[in-house]
Amino acid sequence: MINVAIVGASGFTGLELIKILINHPQFNITYVANSSGNTTVSQLHSCLDGVFDMDVKKANASQLAKVADIAFLALPHKASMSFAKELLDLNIKVIDLSADYRLELETYEKFYCPHEDKNNLKHSIYGLPEFYEDQIKNTKLVANPGCYPTATLLALLPFVPYLDQKANIFVDAKSGVSGAGKKLSDITAFVNTNENMFAYNAMKHRHSPEIDEKVFELTDIKVNVNFVPSLIPVTRGMLVSIYVTLEDICDAKKVLKDFYKDEEFVRIKENPVNIKDTSGTNFCDIFVEQNGNALFINSSIDNLLRGASSQAVVNANLMCGFEAGVGISKIAYVP
Amino acid sequence: MINVAIVGASGFTGLELIKILINHPQFNITYVANSSGNTTVSQLHSCLDGVFDMDVKKANASQLAKVADIAFLALPHKASMSFAKELLDLNIKVIDLSADYRLELETYEKFYCPHEDKNNLKHSIYGLPEFYEDQIKNTKLVANPGCYPTATLLALLPFVPYLDQKANIFVDAKSGVSGAGKKLSDITAFVNTNENMFAYNAMKHRHSPEIDEKVFELTDIKVNVNFVPSLIPVTRGMLVSIYVTLEDICDAKKVLKDFYKDEEFVRIKENPVNIKDTSGTNFCDIFVEQNGNALFINSSIDNLLRGASSQAVVNANLMCGFEAGVGISKIAYVP
Amino acid sequence: MINVAIVGASGFTGLELIKILINHPQFNITYVANSSGNTTVSQLHSCLDGVFDMDVKKANASQLAKVADIAFLALPHKASMSFAKELLDLNIKVIDLSADYRLELETYEKFYCPHEDKNNLKHSIYGLPEFYEDQIKNTKLVANPGCYPTATLLALLPFVPYLDQKANIFVDAKSGVSGAGKKLSDITAFVNTNENMFAYNAMKHRHSPEIDEKVFELTDIKVNVNFVPSLIPVTRGMLVSIYVTLEDICDAKKVLKDFYKDEEFVRIKENPVNIKDTSGTNFCDIFVEQNGNALFINSSIDNLLRGASSQAVVNANLMCGFEAGVGISKIAYVP
Amino acid sequence: MINVAIVGASGFTGLELIKILINHPQFNITYVANSSGNTTVSQLHSCLDGVFDMDVKKANASQLAKVADIAFLALPHKASMSFAKELLDLNIKVIDLSADYRLELETYEKFYCPHEDKNNLKHSIYGLPEFYEDQIKNTKLVANPGCYPTATLLALLPFVPYLDQKANIFVDAKSGVSGAGKKLSDITAFVNTNENMFAYNAMKHRHSPEIDEKVFELTDIKVNVNFVPSLIPVTRGMLVSIYVTLEDICDAKKVLKDFYKDEEFVRIKENPVNIKDTSGTNFCDIFVEQNGNALFINSSIDNLLRGASSQAVVNANLMCGFEAGVGISKIAYVP
Repeated sequence: MINVAIVGASGFTGLELIKILINHPQFNITYVANSSGNTTVSQLHSCLDGVFDMDVKKANASQLAKVADIAFLALPHKASMSFAKELLDLNIKVIDLSADYRLELETYEKFYCPHEDKNNLKHSIYGLPEFYEDQIKNTKLVANPGCYPTATLLALLPFVPYLDQKANIFVDAKSGVSGAGKKLSDITAFVNTNENMFAYNAMKHRHSPEIDEKVFELTDIKVNVNFVPSLIPVTRGMLVSIYVTLEDICDAKKVLKDFYKDEEFVRIKENPVNIKDTSGTNFCDIFVEQNGNALFINSSIDNLLRGASSQAVVNANLMCGFEAGVGISKIAYVP
Repeated sequence: MINVAIVGASGFTGLELIKILINHPQFNITYVANSSGNTTVSQLHSCLDGVFDMDVKKANASQLAKVADIAFLALPHKASMSFAKELLDLNIKVIDLSADYRLELETYEKFYCPHEDKNNLKHSIYGLPEFYEDQIKNTKLVANPGCYPTATLLALLPFVPYLDQKANIFVDAKSGVSGAGKKLSDITAFVNTNENMFAYNAMKHRHSPEIDEKVFELTDIKVNVNFVPSLIPVTRGMLVSIYVTLEDICDAKKVLKDFYKDEEFVRIKENPVNIKDTSGTNFCDIFVEQNGNALFINSSIDNLLRGASSQAVVNANLMCGFEAGVGISKIAYVP
Repeated sequence: MINVAIVGASGFTGLELIKILINHPQFNITYVANSSGNTTVSQLHSCLDGVFDMDVKKANASQLAKVADIAFLALPHKASMSFAKELLDLNIKVIDLSADYRLELETYEKFYCPHEDKNNLKHSIYGLPEFYEDQIKNTKLVANPGCYPTATLLALLPFVPYLDQKANIFVDAKSGVSGAGKKLSDITAFVNTNENMFAYNAMKHRHSPEIDEKVFELTDIKVNVNFVPSLIPVTRGMLVSIYVTLEDICDAKKVLKDFYKDEEFVRIKENPVNIKDTSGTNFCDIFVEQNGNALFINSSIDNLLRGASSQAVVNANLMCGFEAGVGISKIAYVP
Repeated sequence: MINVAIVGASGFTGLELIKILINHPQFNITYVANSSGNTTVSQLHSCLDGVFDMDVKKANASQLAKVADIAFLALPHKASMSFAKELLDLNIKVIDLSADYRLELETYEKFYCPHEDKNNLKHSIYGLPEFYEDQIKNTKLVANPGCYPTATLLALLPFVPYLDQKANIFVDAKSGVSGAGKKLSDITAFVNTNENMFAYNAMKHRHSPEIDEKVFELTDIKVNVNFVPSLIPVTRGMLVSIYVTLEDICDAKKVLKDFYKDEEFVRIKENPVNIKDTSGTNFCDIFVEQNGNALFINSSIDNLLRGASSQAVVNANLMCGFEAGVGISKIAYVP
C-alpha cells in the first residue's frame, strides 16, 4: 500500500478523489487538507458520513511529506504551483489537477498569470494516458488535463493527419454544471441553469490553447480550434461535438476504430454517444459520422472523473507501477 | 372577429395554438378537432380546465368550413395534405404546421412520401415572415416552417453572401424534449433524457433539405448544411450553433444588426443567447462571434412557439390583414 | 389608467410584477426601483430586452409619490416597513409582498424583528382575496400573503370546522427553487438541488404562525399546524399536502366544492393536483381524498404568481375598484 | 464463488443487479435472462458495452438450474411466482423482487390476483435484513421488499410502540421516476414529469397493506397507514415523510439512535435527509423532529438499490453465509 494525500478536499474533484481512493486496493489515504482545515471529511461531504472519516488539515507541505508519498492537488490554479513546488522539493510525487503545469510557459502566462515554478514546469508530463503513458510512468509531476481538452483531444487526435489544414476546426462542447465548480455564481444557480442552456466565452475559452499545444506536440501539425463551451442543465457529464473538414476522404469509422483498438478506456460507438453511458466511469466514448469531406466527431466523458479525478488516479497508478485501471470504475451511474 | 379552426388539438402545438387564440383580439375559435373526436379541450389539456372548453370533434372538412374561415392544421405529415386539400377546395385559408407544403415536390418525395396535393404545393408560401411577408399576405396556404429550419435560417441567412462557398457549414442544434412530440418513445422517456444529452440522425436529418432549399430560394446560393440535432433535458426551447467560414472578413456583428434592424421579433444580443429568454415568446434571439474567418452564429427560439404555433398565428395575422404581432406574446417564461 | 410603482425590481417577484403590469389594461408602470438604482429594467432582466425598458431608480418614496398612486413593494422584510410607512404618509396605496404587515405585532416580533411601523400594522389587510375581498377594497395597505400560507390556507380553511381539534395537523409543502429567492446560497446551487429533494426548517418554519393566526381570525378555532417545507428540483411551482383528522365524517369532496363554488381562481379537481397546471397562472387547484376520518388535502399554486405577484395585482385591482381578474393570466406554462 | 442467475435483465432493477454482481467478490453471474431472450447484456444496456457481456436467454428454469445455485427474479408480479415455484422445486435459492411472496395470502389476492404458489408463500421470508436477518440466513425464498415499504418501515418501526393508537398515521412518499419502471407511459414521459410533481393513488396505494402487515408481524400492533405516493422529477431516489402522534412524549431522537445503533446500513442524521446522500448506496438515512406529541420522521433511500437490487444482494449474502455488506456500495452518486 502506498500512502496518498489529497489537497483541496472541499470541491467536487476533491470529493471524487476521496470516493475513488477509499476503495482503491493499492492506495491508502493518510492526509486530507483544504485551505482552512479544522474540519472533517464527513463534515465537508455528508454523503461520506459513516463511510469514511478523517481530519481535514490546513494544507502544509512538510506535514504532508511525513505521512504520504504521493499527492493529488485539487486546488485553484496559482495556489497549486506554489504548493506543488514545495512537495516536489520534499520528493513527493504530484498529480496536479489545476492548469498550472499543463501549458508552455509563454502560453500559461498569456492566459493565466506569471508562473512561479518554471523549473518544474519544464519537466511536467501531460496526464493523458493514451498518449503519454511511458512518460507518466517515469515522472514525478503529472499535469492532469482539463475536462474540455480531454474530451476534445481524444476525439480529435485520430483525425488530425487527415484534415484539410486550411479549413476551420470547430468544437461545440457541453458541460454539466459541476464543471463550473462549487463556488456560488449566477451561472451555477439552479433557477438560471435549469430549463436553460447557453454558451460562454465563445471562441475565447482558455482551454483552446491547451488543445492547440497538445495537438502540435503530438502530431507536429499546427491547429487553431474554435472552441465554444456551453453549460447544460445536468449535474455531471460532458458531450463534445467536433466539426472538421477532411483533406482526402478517408473511412472515418475505420480510422477511429483502428486508432483506439487496444485502449481499455476508450469505446468506439455505433451511435451518437450520450452522457449517461460514461457518467460515473473513466470511459471516453467516441462516435464519428461523415458526409463527404465533412466530419462530425462526438465524444462523451464524465467531466469530474475522466475529466479530472479518475484520470488523476490512472496517472497515479502508472506513476507507481500499477496497471492503469486498478481501482477505476467502469460501471456507469445508469439509470 | 374572424372564425378559426384548430385541427390536431391533442398535441403540444395544438395546445399552444389554443392558448394563443383564446386571448387573441381578432380571432375566435369556433372549431376544434383531432383524429378521434368525442372529447373536450379540457379533457385533453387539464390546464385549461375552467379557462376554455369546447367539444373536440373528429376532423371533418365540410363541417369545419361551415363555422370557420381559416384553419390551423397541427397534424402529422401526410394526414395534413389530404385534409388541407379539402379545405382549400372549400375556400378555407390554411396554415399547415406539418412538412407537407414546405418543400419542392422532388425533395418532399425523397424524404417523406408521395405527395397527394401537388397542385396546391406549387402555390404554398413558406411562412417565415421576415422573408416572405408580402407573399404570406396574399396566399391561401402557408407552409409553417419547422423549428430547426426557423432557428437555423434566421441565424444563417444574413451571412450567406459572405461565406466561403467551398467551406462546410455545420449546424449543431439542440431541442427541448417537447420537440419530439407527445407520442411515447424511449427518446422522450424521463429516465432516458434527464441528466443526459445525445445527438440523433446526425448529418442525416430531414430538416437539412428544408434549410438548403430556402437558402437557395432566397439567395441563389447553393448550400449543403451538415445538420446535427440533439435532445437536451429541458421541456421547451431550442438553441442553435452554426459554424461557418467567411470568404472575406466582414464585421459580423454589424452585418447582423443591420440585417434585422427593422424586425419586431428578432433580437440581436451582445452575449451568447439562452433558451429561457425566448421561451414563451415569438422572439428569435441571435448572437454572433468571429475569430478571423471563422464564425459562430448562435440563435434561440421557443420550439413550440416561434418554431410552430406563434409563428403560425403571425402568418394568420398577415393572411387576414392584421399587424404581424397582434395577440403574440413577448413575455418570456422567466424565471 | 392608474400609475403604479414597483419597488424591488431585481428579484423574481419584482420581475413577475413587471411582466404582469406591462400588459395590464388599467395600470401604467411609471416608476421602477431597487436598492441601488443606476440600471434599467432590461439590464436586470435580459428577457425584457426589446419588450419593456425603463430606468431603475434607487428607491425614494417622495420621488415615487410624484409619479405613481399605488406601489408594489417586493422588498426584504424590515426594509419594506420603513419604506411603506413613508409611502402611506404620502397617501400612496401599498401592496407589500414582504412579511412586515402580515402578522400580529407580538407574533411578528417573535419570529422576525422589532416592528417599526406599528400604527399601520394595525390597519393592514391580509391580501387573500377569497376571504378578505371587502376589506381589501377599502384599505390603503395590503399585506400580500406568503406562498406557503396561500397554498395552505386555501386548502385547509374549508375543513377547519370539521376537524378533530385534539388531532395534529400536518402540512408537507414542496416549493420550487425560485421560492428561495435570487440570492446565491448552497440551497439554490444547481448541483445541490438538481436530482435532489430535502426538507428544511422542519416543524419550525416561520410561516406556521402566519397560517395559525389567519385560521383563528377567520374561524375562531385555534390550530397549531406542523409545517414541513421542502425544496424540489423545479424552478417554479408549489405543491402542498395537508394531513388532518375529521371529528365527524363529512363528504369532503362536497364540502370543498360547495365552499369554493363561486370563486374564479380556485379550481376543485377530480385527481391529485399537479404543479404544471397552475404554473404561469393565478389559480389555486385543490383536491381532497378521505379514508375514514383521515383526510388528504392537496393544493397547487405558482409560488411566484398566486404565491406573490399575481395575487398582489389582484389585490391592487380590488383596491382600485376593478374586477379581481383584470390583467391576470389563466393560461398555464404547459407543456 | 457461487453461481448466480438474473432473470428479468431488461428493466432498471435487473440492470442494477448486474452492476452490483459484476464486481461482487463471492458471486459469479452465470445466467442472464428476460422474457424474450435472443439478445445480450450490452445490447440491452449500452453503458455496459466493453464492461460485461453475456447472452441473454429466454427465461427457462431447468436451464438456469444447470448453471446457477441462486436466482434473482426481477420480474413483474404473477410472472414471478410461477417461475419461482419451478426454481424452488429444482432446489435453487430465490430472491424475488416482485410482490408475489411479500404478503399474506388473503391480502395478496385482494390487491393483486389469485396466488399460484401458496405453498412456498407460507415459508417465504420478508427480506428486510434489519428485522429478519436470522430467518433470511435460513431460507430458500426471500421476498424482497418494495421501495416504498422499505423506506417507510425502517423509519416508522422504531416509533410504533410510542404511538397514540387512535391517531392517524400519514405517509407522504416521493419517488424518483425510475420507480415507475421502464415501460413507457404518460406518467414517465419527460414533458409530463419534468418541472412537475403530483401524487397518484393517494390513500389507495397497494403498498399500504405491505406496511400494515409487517408492522403487525413485528410489533403486534395494528396500524392502518394513510399512504400518499408522489413522483418527483429526479431519476432515482426516494424521500419519505411520516407524520404521527405520540401517546406519551418520548425523546424521539434518542429512541431512533438507540434503535439502530448497531446497524451498518442505517444512518441517523442531525438534519433532514436528502436524496443524493443515499443515491448509489444501500443506506437508509433517517431523521426525526418533534413538536410536542407530533412527530415528523424522514427517511431517504435509493429506490433501485436499498429499495430493490442492493437489498436483494444483501439478502443473497445472508442466505449464502457471507457478511451482509459484501460487495455492497456505500459510495453515493454525489455530486
